[in-house]
Amino acid sequence: MRIYGDRISGNCLKVKWVCDYLRKPYDWTEIDTTKGESRTGEFLKLNPAGQVPVVVLDDGRALAQSNAIIRYLAAGSALIPQDAYLAAKMDEWLFWEQYSHEPYLAVCRFQMIYLKRSVGDLDPEKVKRGYAALARMEMQLHQSSFLIGNALTLADIALLAYTRTAHEGGFHLDGYAALRRWIGDCEATLGL
Amino acid sequence: MRIYGDRISGNCLKVKWVCDYLRKPYDWTEIDTTKGESRTGEFLKLNPAGQVPVVVLDDGRALAQSNAIIRYLAAGSALIPQDAYLAAKMDEWLFWEQYSHEPYLAVCRFQMIYLKRSVGDLDPEKVKRGYAALARMEMQLHQSSFLIGNALTLADIALLAYTRTAHEGGFHLDGYAALRRWIGDCEATLGL
Repeated sequence: MRIYGDRISGNCLKVKWVCDYLRKPYDWTEIDTTKGESRTGEFLKLNPAGQVPVVVLDDGRALAQSNAIIRYLAAGSALIPQDAYLAAKMDEWLFWEQYSHEPYLAVCRFQMIYLKRSVGDLDPEKVKRGYAALARMEMQLHQSSFLIGNALTLADIALLAYTRTAHEGGFHLDGYAALRRWIGDCEATLGL
Repeated sequence: MRIYGDRISGNCLKVKWVCDYLRKPYDWTEIDTTKGESRTGEFLKLNPAGQVPVVVLDDGRALAQSNAIIRYLAAGSALIPQDAYLAAKMDEWLFWEQYSHEPYLAVCRFQMIYLKRSVGDLDPEKVKRGYAALARMEMQLHQSSFLIGNALTLADIALLAYTRTAHEGGFHLDGYAALRRWIGDCEATLGL
């Protein structure tokens, strides 16, 4: 299997972490999205949406969308709860991550790292919604060790990606004790 | 099972369509989000994210996020491909819908219907990305009858929600023949 990804992108790291944790072998092709490498004709054949990560399986078939990829790679492993309802709650976090977390935490980080904006130049609405996402996680992590009960699942891996780099987007986790504890627990479990 | 939803919301209709198609019985509680009904203390106990739809299963457990809900409800049905790779491609569309389609098509529609904005007042970047999403679908629907091969799956149901109402957000489908054909096929299959 080959992963096409950008090592600075949390969405790509999710795929790497799942493979490393489950000891699935892969080759990595670095794609620099800032140089248009995800918009070449060759890349668009793999993913017409022009986004990383993409994996190409050993039979040549491609798959995109970080959370769809990790769901596929982790099938049958302990990273997906066996109970159907708990697996659905995991999916709830995965979809929530892409709609209510990534567009604020990851986008603010992108603007600061790549576009060299300062904290004061960030869209206040994005900052507000980013903190709302962090507060939602904090509330859950006061109730359980991980997002789904007491064991690491894909929900944690997906949310870890842009929560552990929140500070790079100008977010402070000072008031989020459970979140800081959880980041440490996830990193220790994944060996990061 | 009880669905808490807003009948004008495509995200909520996805859940209704899946239940109706699979003949799963449900009660419906209408939630008017414009009146803050998804932000009451009682509602936030069901979904701390304060979003519709939410379903409460017969055992009292709640589940949120439209695509997580329909994935749970359709488990074992023909709406999810049996082949693991094709199911993952379906997931690819479900995550893409929430990240690259809904935030443009649904949000422009929301601004026109609820906020009474005119087409000219819409954010040009949102309009551009909305058309890019439609073009991505059009390309796929030239290659296959439905988004995954030749049978209706959850990918079609999720994308249908805000594609069939694209015109309500100021989008024209004149140049999208495959998309218009597909909308008709989906509606006929679902009996809409």
